Amino acid sequence: MKRKVCFVITSGIHYGRSRYILEAIKSHPHLELQLVVGASALLPQYGDVITMMEKDGFKPDARIVMTLEGGNPVAMAKTAGIGITEFATAFDNLLPDIVVVRGDRYEVLSAAVAAAYLNIPVAHIEGGDITGTIDESVRHAITKLAHIHFATHEAAKQRILRMGENPQYVFMVGSPELEFIAKNGFVVTNEYINYLGVGNMVDITKPYLIVMQHPVTSEVGKNRQHITETLQAIYEFGMPTIWFWPNVDAGTDEVSKGIRAFREKYQPPHIRFLKYVPPEQFIGLLKGAHCLVGNSSAGIKECSYIGTPVVNIGTRQHRRLRGPNVVDVGYNKEAIIEAIKQQLAHGLYEPSLIYYREGVSQQIANILASVELYTQKYFFE
Amino acid sequence: MKRKVCFVITSGIHYGRSRYILEAIKSHPHLELQLVVGASALLPQYGDVITMMEKDGFKPDARIVMTLEGGNPVAMAKTAGIGITEFATAFDNLLPDIVVVRGDRYEVLSAAVAAAYLNIPVAHIEGGDITGTIDESVRHAITKLAHIHFATHEAAKQRILRMGENPQYVFMVGSPELEFIAKNGFVVTNEYINYLGVGNMVDITKPYLIVMQHPVTSEVGKNRQHITETLQAIYEFGMPTIWFWPNVDAGTDEVSKGIRAFREKYQPPHIRFLKYVPPEQFIGLLKGAHCLVGNSSAGIKECSYIGTPVVNIGTRQHRRLRGPNVVDVGYNKEAIIEAIKQQLAHGLYEPSLIYYREGVSQQIANILASVELYTQKYFFE
Amino acid sequence: MKRKVCFVITSGIHYGRSRYILEAIKSHPHLELQLVVGASALLPQYGDVITMMEKDGFKPDARIVMTLEGGNPVAMAKTAGIGITEFATAFDNLLPDIVVVRGDRYEVLSAAVAAAYLNIPVAHIEGGDITGTIDESVRHAITKLAHIHFATHEAAKQRILRMGENPQYVFMVGSPELEFIAKNGFVVTNEYINYLGVGNMVDITKPYLIVMQHPVTSEVGKNRQHITETLQAIYEFGMPTIWFWPNVDAGTDEVSKGIRAFREKYQPPHIRFLKYVPPEQFIGLLKGAHCLVGNSSAGIKECSYIGTPVVNIGTRQHRRLRGPNVVDVGYNKEAIIEAIKQQLAHGLYEPSLIYYREGVSQQIANILASVELYTQKYFFE
Amino acid sequence: MKRKVCFVITSGIHYGRSRYILEAIKSHPHLELQLVVGASALLPQYGDVITMMEKDGFKPDARIVMTLEGGNPVAMAKTAGIGITEFATAFDNLLPDIVVVRGDRYEVLSAAVAAAYLNIPVAHIEGGDITGTIDESVRHAITKLAHIHFATHEAAKQRILRMGENPQYVFMVGSPELEFIAKNGFVVTNEYINYLGVGNMVDITKPYLIVMQHPVTSEVGKNRQHITETLQAIYEFGMPTIWFWPNVDAGTDEVSKGIRAFREKYQPPHIRFLKYVPPEQFIGLLKGAHCLVGNSSAGIKECSYIGTPVVNIGTRQHRRLRGPNVVDVGYNKEAIIEAIKQQLAHGLYEPSLIYYREGVSQQIANILASVELYTQKYFFE
Repeated sequence: MKRKVCFVITSGIHYGRSRYILEAIKSHPHLELQLVVGASALLPQYGDVITMMEKDGFKPDARIVMTLEGGNPVAMAKTAGIGITEFATAFDNLLPDIVVVRGDRYEVLSAAVAAAYLNIPVAHIEGGDITGTIDESVRHAITKLAHIHFATHEAAKQRILRMGENPQYVFMVGSPELEFIAKNGFVVTNEYINYLGVGNMVDITKPYLIVMQHPVTSEVGKNRQHITETLQAIYEFGMPTIWFWPNVDAGTDEVSKGIRAFREKYQPPHIRFLKYVPPEQFIGLLKGAHCLVGNSSAGIKECSYIGTPVVNIGTRQHRRLRGPNVVDVGYNKEAIIEAIKQQLAHGLYEPSLIYYREGVSQQIANILASVELYTQKYFFE
Repeated sequence: MKRKVCFVITSGIHYGRSRYILEAIKSHPHLELQLVVGASALLPQYGDVITMMEKDGFKPDARIVMTLEGGNPVAMAKTAGIGITEFATAFDNLLPDIVVVRGDRYEVLSAAVAAAYLNIPVAHIEGGDITGTIDESVRHAITKLAHIHFATHEAAKQRILRMGENPQYVFMVGSPELEFIAKNGFVVTNEYINYLGVGNMVDITKPYLIVMQHPVTSEVGKNRQHITETLQAIYEFGMPTIWFWPNVDAGTDEVSKGIRAFREKYQPPHIRFLKYVPPEQFIGLLKGAHCLVGNSSAGIKECSYIGTPVVNIGTRQHRRLRGPNVVDVGYNKEAIIEAIKQQLAHGLYEPSLIYYREGVSQQIANILASVELYTQKYFFE
Repeated sequence: MKRKVCFVITSGIHYGRSRYILEAIKSHPHLELQLVVGASALLPQYGDVITMMEKDGFKPDARIVMTLEGGNPVAMAKTAGIGITEFATAFDNLLPDIVVVRGDRYEVLSAAVAAAYLNIPVAHIEGGDITGTIDESVRHAITKLAHIHFATHEAAKQRILRMGENPQYVFMVGSPELEFIAKNGFVVTNEYINYLGVGNMVDITKPYLIVMQHPVTSEVGKNRQHITETLQAIYEFGMPTIWFWPNVDAGTDEVSKGIRAFREKYQPPHIRFLKYVPPEQFIGLLKGAHCLVGNSSAGIKECSYIGTPVVNIGTRQHRRLRGPNVVDVGYNKEAIIEAIKQQLAHGLYEPSLIYYREGVSQQIANILASVELYTQKYFFE
Repeated sequence: MKRKVCFVITSGIHYGRSRYILEAIKSHPHLELQLVVGASALLPQYGDVITMMEKDGFKPDARIVMTLEGGNPVAMAKTAGIGITEFATAFDNLLPDIVVVRGDRYEVLSAAVAAAYLNIPVAHIEGGDITGTIDESVRHAITKLAHIHFATHEAAKQRILRMGENPQYVFMVGSPELEFIAKNGFVVTNEYINYLGVGNMVDITKPYLIVMQHPVTSEVGKNRQHITETLQAIYEFGMPTIWFWPNVDAGTDEVSKGIRAFREKYQPPHIRFLKYVPPEQFIGLLKGAHCLVGNSSAGIKECSYIGTPVVNIGTRQHRRLRGPNVVDVGYNKEAIIEAIKQQLAHGLYEPSLIYYREGVSQQIANILASVELYTQKYFFE
């Protein structure tokens, strides 16, 4: 009998990064794939993930609307609570043998708590990372609830072990999103990108920037001021720019307000604002960019492998393992401009392999198929 | 301005064990006590905790009904989810400076998740213990969400540190329930105890046993068989016995069914079944008992200090630090009978101080009043 | 293409009463049956409904754990809330063309609200009844949300019309439970009945009583006193009695406490207490009983058709349409005893057809298959 | 002892319309005001209602974040569910003698269900209206749960009575928002209005239009097409226009998308888009407008009394009682333009008193203070 592996997808970007794993599970002779799709993966402003999945041949076994509006800490906490009750019902009906979650967000915590209490082994991708937000605490809490760990790099693996996890169940497999990049040669055109989003037309046949700056949940109250520094810097810099709206998180509202007010006032002619592009196109954009600015994990992980220069702003990726392509700056207009100049002068970096391992998706599927399952955890001393 | 300390009470026994801490907080010149009472502390079959609290001079700032019926894993998981949304609303309205939680149950996880996302520092009492159920995973997950740690013994403190917590915020203060015992001289009478519960009259002026055997959440499906071994053992043993109904947890239903079927069939003349006695009376009962049988943490913690002999059955307290007063046995009638005989032959043990420190409640209050508060956690490497 | 008809089952008794409808839908050439099972139908103490359904050839499409513990108004209200969010997810995943609900309880309101907001037509069985509790208000609220109405008798139909519903969609089809009785010849044996429940053996080859007294939600605070009058009456009367535990509702806890205390004190030798018997056996018991005592709707509906004498106590069935078999009394021991005597003297009544129509289940299925569906309701003036 | 009257506020506009009632309750010698504020009243994009309330001297007793993101039917249904559990906790803690709700939205249903199950009498303002959406069904369902009814006009009162409510508890008091208008002389300046929102500057010293077109929940899937007709009409018409973003409801997302796409494409120079203006300013705007276009109830109620000409589009206010100031049209650009021309040619209408009664707020407070309270409802035949 095949093992039923239930994969939890909670955002469009998460879907993109996980697609090869889904394919490896689906085509594995001893595994059966179940898909639970929820949270911002169901919000239309973040792209029609369901349609995309179905086009790729994946059919959701359950869809779960669960995101509270507000972009503030209360909404985030309560969404986590709603998520647990919903995932519990979904798992109780689907009866998977393993639940696979990824990352550090509240929806992911929800799924891990629900599965753990239902005595379903939890496999966690990307445990042990340090990032410097509430998400980091949540990531480690998920590790303490999970039974099988897929770390993306050695330092993360060591942290997972230090927290008392059983070495037999901690695997360093590399980062799935880099495999996605390695296999992906998509090129984005002007026509494509200017069809999406709002703002002025940008010409990405010329050198361009990408900005991705999400709220920092532990800096609620200061996110608007922080985004304004970046907005001013990019505005003054004047280079064609593709700017992504922030993730749904505590503080999103502050960042959005900052962007909206800025757009109204300056109507910046060289910036195009996007909510979402599908994963292939996103990688295409990253590959073509002359510099990525902001605090996205894409700067730390994807760009380390691509070699795109990154200006990383503020605390969100604090202490996370970096390749040589990252320059760190504070929330300061001048410093941001200075760092962009420096990165443009340097140009593309050599690919770094700190997060890369070949065949990560297949390896994850193989481990899920062969590892001995257990439910009772012990602190490994 | 006083720091607002919000203490979360989720069961009657939890209230009893925390009462001196509540008093220390309430009377501290720099602290203001807020009380949120929820879960089984509001279920009438577990004692009228609210009335008891009000008699003691404590007024709840919020009451939260949240426990799903079923006594099974799904109910437990979903209760955790409901708890988060409810605690988030409560904290958002009460705006405490610190939230204090205790232990390892799902309601406690709920409160910790809600507070952490609301950027309210979480103080956790009794982190780092190992117990061998899903509760242990949850306990460690709470540690990874909490900011201030009050460990009850040295080994627990060491585990908290190993998990990457900042040593500056990990305090070994001893176990609050032992202070409760040390200060408490209540004597329980036959009249009192036979007024409560159901079953036959017991004469506790003669040697008597106490049984407290809760379900093991990771052994759902086997709890009925396990309780039956104990029921048979106690029935055959024939000594006056006070038997406590199990906690609300996954598997409660199995244990309850086992007890009910047994009662119907054997109508055991020497056993009295209680749902709940108030904390003082409970300690009085423990002090008077010739042996405690089952898998309650009271056998590990309270009885280590009192010296009451304990027959600890099965995996629920697995690997937890024990005093000399504990004999461990499996789920086996003969073994249980044998161990009880052995413990009765030994009689009262010398008090062990493994979990005891003087003045723990006051010390917790003092730390809560003076420690520098922070919200952003870092993995301490 | 077949119409997908989603039937909501929220208790074991509800399942029994609806089984013929389920069969009629399942076997209808233009209908496809979907089953959502939740609330007390999933609570083990109320019988293993899922197993029974599967034995009958029905497979649930979704199971939903949703009942908050407490047996009080807050628990009841919050269960309604949880129910809506859960049913919304279930319906959103199952995408039925019609949702069928029945009765007046909070779980039923949940399903109706969820379906109505999802623009799924709601068919409601048993609208327009008057009962004299919060359930009556809820029943009428469901009517105002529903699109297709299956009334069980003419007066109910008239009330539905008066509330502004479109006559084209109000059908008087009779009561499905009476069809169940008409087709059912099950005989209950002493062996069967004494295998279930707790208390003394009863001999149902001799004349016996059945007691079913549920809490009255609008009399919370007085339910214990009310049940005690009945307990005293039955105890003094001394005839073999089968006593059913109360439904989960606000006030359940008061009734249960009353029964438990009474059992402890009097250990009544002639009463057997049951939580639940499957529908066939239940009807068998009703047919054999010399009198039904309490406030169950079974006394009003099922017994009108069977002819079993009924002593109806208090307000719960207030103003509901009765056959000649019902004698009404207040919450008073003497009055209850007097009324039982009078009913025993009278013996079995002639069957009344006030709630009966032939072929009700098939007719409901036919209407569901053929009625023109619509979502936008208008007040019919 | 004063009666505790708990008023539920779930949006900014709702607050504005209710302010005089709040003042009448607060200053009544026999009443004590409690305030529960939730749903979109807490969403920053709809105005900082809490700050406004505090400026007006009202302090919320509880704040409840509860709105699920998505702007679709599932989100709407589940928000209703979350609302019930949250309101139940709030009422259980505040213990009001009466809960007052208003209107027909899902948050209002939530509050009514919670209060009804908690045996707290519910007073409902604006029952009996007919509007032609899912909201109408919900409005009538609330009527069937409520104990005291404040109808705004005679036809509504008659419908409430027809539904079986007790005439003793159905009061025709007129519409509170008209009292607000009658007492309010606020004038809006160009500076004020162009400080808010996005889009081009508008000059409201010249003749201007207001557009308020909300999604129709029973027309989900067609709302974008419908809004586009209006957008085209207004664009071609070319007159200065203040356009309000739609309410949070199923279909909001479709309307918003339509507006955003339109703005990007046409960058209409004469339209200013606002999310929210405070109540006084809103009335000022209505008084100054030469025509209101869309489907807002403000066109039906407020404008009937002011005399502002209204072009009412589509089904949302279907069959609702109108004054002479309303011209109805379908979702059709040409028809909309034609109707606006006709209304501009006519100019201001004579005030209609169909919804107006003097002293409505004081009368509501007086009734709340003096009416005999009850919980058990009966269908009044």
